[in-house]
Amino acid sequence: MAQSIADRRDQEFVLHEMLNAADLASHDRFKEFNKKTMDMVLTEARNLAVKELLPVSKEGDETGCTLENGKVTIPSSFHRAYKLFCEGEWVAMCDDPEFGGQGMPRILSMAAGELFTGANCAFLMYPGLTHGAGKLVEEFGTEDQKKKYLENLYTGKWAGTMCLTEPEAGSDVGNLTTIAKRNEDGTFSITGSKIFISGGDQDLTENIIHPVLARIEGAPAGTKGISLFLVPKYRVNDDGTISEPNDVTCTGLEEKMGIHGNATASLAFGSKGNCIGELLGAENKGMKAMFVMMNEARLGVGLQGFGFASASYVNAVNYAKERIQGTDLTKIFDKDPKPVAIINHPDVKRQLLHMKAYVDGMRSLMYFAALCFDKVLTSTDDTDKDTWQGLIELLIPVVKGYITDRAFEVCTQGVQVFGGYGFISEYPQEQLLRDCKITSIYEGTNGIQAMDLLGRKLGLKKGKPFMDLLTRMNQTIAAAKEIPELADMAVRVETAVNKLGETAMHMGMTAMSEKVLDAFAVAHPFLDVTGDVVMAWLELWRAVTAQPKIGSAKKKDAAFYQGQVTTAKYFIQWVLPATLGKMDALKGNIPAIMEMPEDAFPA
Amino acid sequence: MAQSIADRRDQEFVLHEMLNAADLASHDRFKEFNKKTMDMVLTEARNLAVKELLPVSKEGDETGCTLENGKVTIPSSFHRAYKLFCEGEWVAMCDDPEFGGQGMPRILSMAAGELFTGANCAFLMYPGLTHGAGKLVEEFGTEDQKKKYLENLYTGKWAGTMCLTEPEAGSDVGNLTTIAKRNEDGTFSITGSKIFISGGDQDLTENIIHPVLARIEGAPAGTKGISLFLVPKYRVNDDGTISEPNDVTCTGLEEKMGIHGNATASLAFGSKGNCIGELLGAENKGMKAMFVMMNEARLGVGLQGFGFASASYVNAVNYAKERIQGTDLTKIFDKDPKPVAIINHPDVKRQLLHMKAYVDGMRSLMYFAALCFDKVLTSTDDTDKDTWQGLIELLIPVVKGYITDRAFEVCTQGVQVFGGYGFISEYPQEQLLRDCKITSIYEGTNGIQAMDLLGRKLGLKKGKPFMDLLTRMNQTIAAAKEIPELADMAVRVETAVNKLGETAMHMGMTAMSEKVLDAFAVAHPFLDVTGDVVMAWLELWRAVTAQPKIGSAKKKDAAFYQGQVTTAKYFIQWVLPATLGKMDALKGNIPAIMEMPEDAFPA
Repeated sequence: MAQSIADRRDQEFVLHEMLNAADLASHDRFKEFNKKTMDMVLTEARNLAVKELLPVSKEGDETGCTLENGKVTIPSSFHRAYKLFCEGEWVAMCDDPEFGGQGMPRILSMAAGELFTGANCAFLMYPGLTHGAGKLVEEFGTEDQKKKYLENLYTGKWAGTMCLTEPEAGSDVGNLTTIAKRNEDGTFSITGSKIFISGGDQDLTENIIHPVLARIEGAPAGTKGISLFLVPKYRVNDDGTISEPNDVTCTGLEEKMGIHGNATASLAFGSKGNCIGELLGAENKGMKAMFVMMNEARLGVGLQGFGFASASYVNAVNYAKERIQGTDLTKIFDKDPKPVAIINHPDVKRQLLHMKAYVDGMRSLMYFAALCFDKVLTSTDDTDKDTWQGLIELLIPVVKGYITDRAFEVCTQGVQVFGGYGFISEYPQEQLLRDCKITSIYEGTNGIQAMDLLGRKLGLKKGKPFMDLLTRMNQTIAAAKEIPELADMAVRVETAVNKLGETAMHMGMTAMSEKVLDAFAVAHPFLDVTGDVVMAWLELWRAVTAQPKIGSAKKKDAAFYQGQVTTAKYFIQWVLPATLGKMDALKGNIPAIMEMPEDAFPA
Repeated sequence: MAQSIADRRDQEFVLHEMLNAADLASHDRFKEFNKKTMDMVLTEARNLAVKELLPVSKEGDETGCTLENGKVTIPSSFHRAYKLFCEGEWVAMCDDPEFGGQGMPRILSMAAGELFTGANCAFLMYPGLTHGAGKLVEEFGTEDQKKKYLENLYTGKWAGTMCLTEPEAGSDVGNLTTIAKRNEDGTFSITGSKIFISGGDQDLTENIIHPVLARIEGAPAGTKGISLFLVPKYRVNDDGTISEPNDVTCTGLEEKMGIHGNATASLAFGSKGNCIGELLGAENKGMKAMFVMMNEARLGVGLQGFGFASASYVNAVNYAKERIQGTDLTKIFDKDPKPVAIINHPDVKRQLLHMKAYVDGMRSLMYFAALCFDKVLTSTDDTDKDTWQGLIELLIPVVKGYITDRAFEVCTQGVQVFGGYGFISEYPQEQLLRDCKITSIYEGTNGIQAMDLLGRKLGLKKGKPFMDLLTRMNQTIAAAKEIPELADMAVRVETAVNKLGETAMHMGMTAMSEKVLDAFAVAHPFLDVTGDVVMAWLELWRAVTAQPKIGSAKKKDAAFYQGQVTTAKYFIQWVLPATLGKMDALKGNIPAIMEMPEDAFPA
């Protein structure tokens, strides 16, 4: 059967040949996750994704969610999928088994997550946000709160959300107006409205726990005065049983471009004056808690983008191999030329190779970033731990911003390969494209990711994480230079890495000068070139891994390995020259964007 | 009131300051279209677009079209819009007044068309295809056929379609299987099925005239044996009155990503053995007729893409000026910083400038291409006529392929500027993005446009049109060099133009060598760089037009002209370096795309 969702062979290549994920089993924490177990987990995940999640994705898109008489209904087919998902203990893959987690390495959860989100992202957001809410409780909750909420969240018995955005407080969350009033019993009465709450209401679980950002009466303005509260849909007794409704009202569901299967709710808290929440973590430290969660959340959105791209790509490959249309370009003047599968057309092959280059590179980046998390947990040396953590901080805006931008482009190409059939709903491509769009927007727009990279991450610890990344790149380049077939590519990547270093230096200096606005005006293009060079490095790493194996591999594997090298060549010889040009622009004359008079735009 | 759909000031700039459209009035053919008349026409078009077409666009998207009991219903609000559109005589803007046309220059119809299609493309496709069908009758019809059909089409009393595609004959239209059987009375009995027929059925007009490609029994296989037929939904008596139904059945409507207001129909011809068509033009010359229509049709699709981009851009500008969110980057450490309109954020300003650069460039290209059509009609000298026609042939794949690709990117950016609101249906941005996607697919996928540019147009007349284009570019460069403020830009564009010449030479040679497949594998990137250089040229042309006027202009106009120069600077200093990098890749080592083993793609 043709593959769907993701290229399994490539998943294994990255896990076991490129990143040696099973080495993690040498650490006590992950001792149960040897290669065999990892492969078993991945097989299980694939089965669930292909047999249960993927088949209901289209129905989720078509049915969508409805709000009637205050009650939200989500696609009915999601109920069975959710039950199986929870039974398989997939909600808290990496978390403490004490609370219902599976304790697996994050790199493995990433491979499984690629399959789940690629199969049905709108569905996966329900358990995904549930896990995030659980994580908040685990990180910041009292023992009582953990006892009350955590296992119910990590097992998916209850669901969770994340309530930040208000109509006038989106990117500027510090502007929020939801108020928490202290009650005598230590609880808080919450009043306010939140919008764009994914999975904000549903008929899937018996309770929903809303982590809500609000300002305690009298707290300072801005982000400094924001606290975090747990606000359940139904109040929870101390023994963990459910009690009466908690004055949380769904006031509307958004009509939107995609992820129709997920209910994007507007929620009113305390419209009857009777919404009770409990403080989670310290007073006025709500934003700090959000920052602690941010890396994981942004990694998750990067994964969503990647999952869409990965699925769109395998669909395109399958289609291009099966769809017969047109004749071979070299035979158009033959008397009776046979039509061929469209993968044989040069332009279609280029499109597929282009998609493959990005999807492969994204997979390497996603899994590598996940491995960094695992390394932080398993490092015994503080310097090592610090280095891995630094790589995480640096790579997160690339993972979230660069990957989701490129993922949308891959999904666009995925529509194009299907021609007219790409535009109609009979095939999955247009839904993947629609669904994917949100990933560049939520969890911090990609513009904000770019500011994060330039303004915070580039100069972090005096630039050590950035230098560490360049060092890693140079190690791969050195290894590639030893392999004659890759030497030319190695030199090209080296040129790009050096230029990235110079560009970063220039950008960093400009951002600290009086030209700060000019620098931030091109923060997003700087994110783009950083991501391009990261892709080039990872493609080269793939080639270094694959090239030595071509000679001795069996036919099918030899083609796979050769494909790695050819794909790297495509990216490095073809995409990278444009990146060099972009870096020339960034290094040279930063364009006077800020000089553009506002009234030169149409009034 | 904030503008919607398109930037009127810029429309006027291109029409009157850059391209001097009113000079056409010196020719007898266009003598009624002086500047004053042109502006009046544009104002009328804008009124209709803003007041009637735009307001029903969202309803069209939401309601869509339905097929029940064999009857197709389109959005009811389109009926009034259609009536007004026909009353305004907008169906056949450029055509012979004898048959109900307005006889206006094409450049003016382009400006009006930008407004119509930007307001409601799904609607505009009904009269647009009607006009195309009429054009076929005008070009290839007998006097009797013209009398019978033409005025009814050009006035919009009847509608028309274009029936080419079949399930197994999309890009490879020569593979079609619809059969025409000769009847004794000279008519033909048509049997076959067509899919993806835009406006294929509806309840808007009393009759629909389907031009249908079919093969006369016994005709040769492939494109050589295809003829064109007029197949009315209701048969038409010789006196032009309507008679009985003609065995044309709508068998389904596509669910699709966008343009929901347009009925994309599957049509069965002759399922009851009773479908009569009349031959239009010569036997077996159906494909030739299609080719004659192709330039106009592809210009139209380029216009659609541009219209979406233009609308998305002005929406984004309006939103960015009104939406208050976040504080000025230089004031984030102030005690109580005021929130500002997001246009002040550097990243948002860059996005708007990026959109503006492309939208402005596209407008210049669309209007210039249209002017070429007018010049062909008004040239008294055969060499001139030939030169203008050559420019049309060369530019059409750029207009269709490059513009629709870039338009989708502009619409993507247009969603991003709105943040979360870009993704929800309350705002127009996500519909524009969805609607826009089809433009890279139909009327020849953009891959086919790229093949057309490389395989047919580049070497046309021994490369004369391409050389003519470079000559025009160099004229603009020379003019820019005379203006000190533009000299640096002029040199940069000159470098790019020279490099394009070299790249084209290299590509052309490769396409004629044994490496032909390698050349066609990068035909699309070659289209991209050609388009980029065309944009750079047009941006420079704008700057040459605007710069001398800055000093003496009134405040508002001065800002507009300064904006032209700054936008040109942005494109030429910022976008063009990446294009140079891409041309380096094209000129150098054409990547071994075709070497990629098919079994290196996932099986």
